[in-house]
Amino acid sequence: MSLEQKIRAAVQAYFDLFNSGDSEGLAALFSDDASVIDPVGTKPKTGKKAIAAFYKTATEGKTKLEADGPVRVVDQSAAFGFRAVIDEIKPEDKAVDVDLPSGAMIIDIIDVFEFNAAGKIIQMRAYWGPSNIR
Amino acid sequence: MSLEQKIRAAVQAYFDLFNSGDSEGLAALFSDDASVIDPVGTKPKTGKKAIAAFYKTATEGKTKLEADGPVRVVDQSAAFGFRAVIDEIKPEDKAVDVDLPSGAMIIDIIDVFEFNAAGKIIQMRAYWGPSNIR
Repeated sequence: MSLEQKIRAAVQAYFDLFNSGDSEGLAALFSDDASVIDPVGTKPKTGKKAIAAFYKTATEGKTKLEADGPVRVVDQSAAFGFRAVIDEIKPEDKAVDVDLPSGAMIIDIIDVFEFNAAGKIIQMRAYWGPSNIR
Repeated sequence: MSLEQKIRAAVQAYFDLFNSGDSEGLAALFSDDASVIDPVGTKPKTGKKAIAAFYKTATEGKTKLEADGPVRVVDQSAAFGFRAVIDEIKPEDKAVDVDLPSGAMIIDIIDVFEFNAAGKIIQMRAYWGPSNIR
């Protein structure tokens, strides 16, 4: 597989694993020293253990990710839009370090992934703010 | 205006100025020492003069930018998807340092802008690759 094919496969796997609640599978998409910044401006979560814990909490509720537009792939990066469709976030299921309303909501997000040459994610940045919650 | 309002106004102005071919107006959205990386992986164009020259070439043809999905705004960043609808690129109008086919095409792009506290763009990164050209 070319790196582009590996990147596209990783993004597809990211959606599938998130939507099936597989936090260990999600963490396995990342390199050992990877970092997750979600949303941009908050403290990075660094290393597989922290990343697995993040996704365990994030997938605890019934949140589903729905792709919104084509995945853009260039060099060692992917950028893509999606909606996080959230049934209900309980206070203990808030994976992100920002205030979120409770109950059902949809968040419009763009993720940017940087990859290493092996096709593992080395950095994830999520772009969404309060104005992207509906 | 809050910084978020300034960021949203700058992104809207970016579309409007690009589509009216105003390269000086586009350059004025950037800070003096800003850089443009389009697409990601190519050499940055740094400083207002280089940025104005880039947009002069990029707007030389009849390219129009069409928003694709909501603008995500967080911290000092904006990320947004759009289509570049290109009537025809002549060899001398290629603003980007990658091979492009000639003739009409549509490119699916995600731009990420970083802003300073005054609401000027300090870095623009464009995510699109060969597989995003149709």
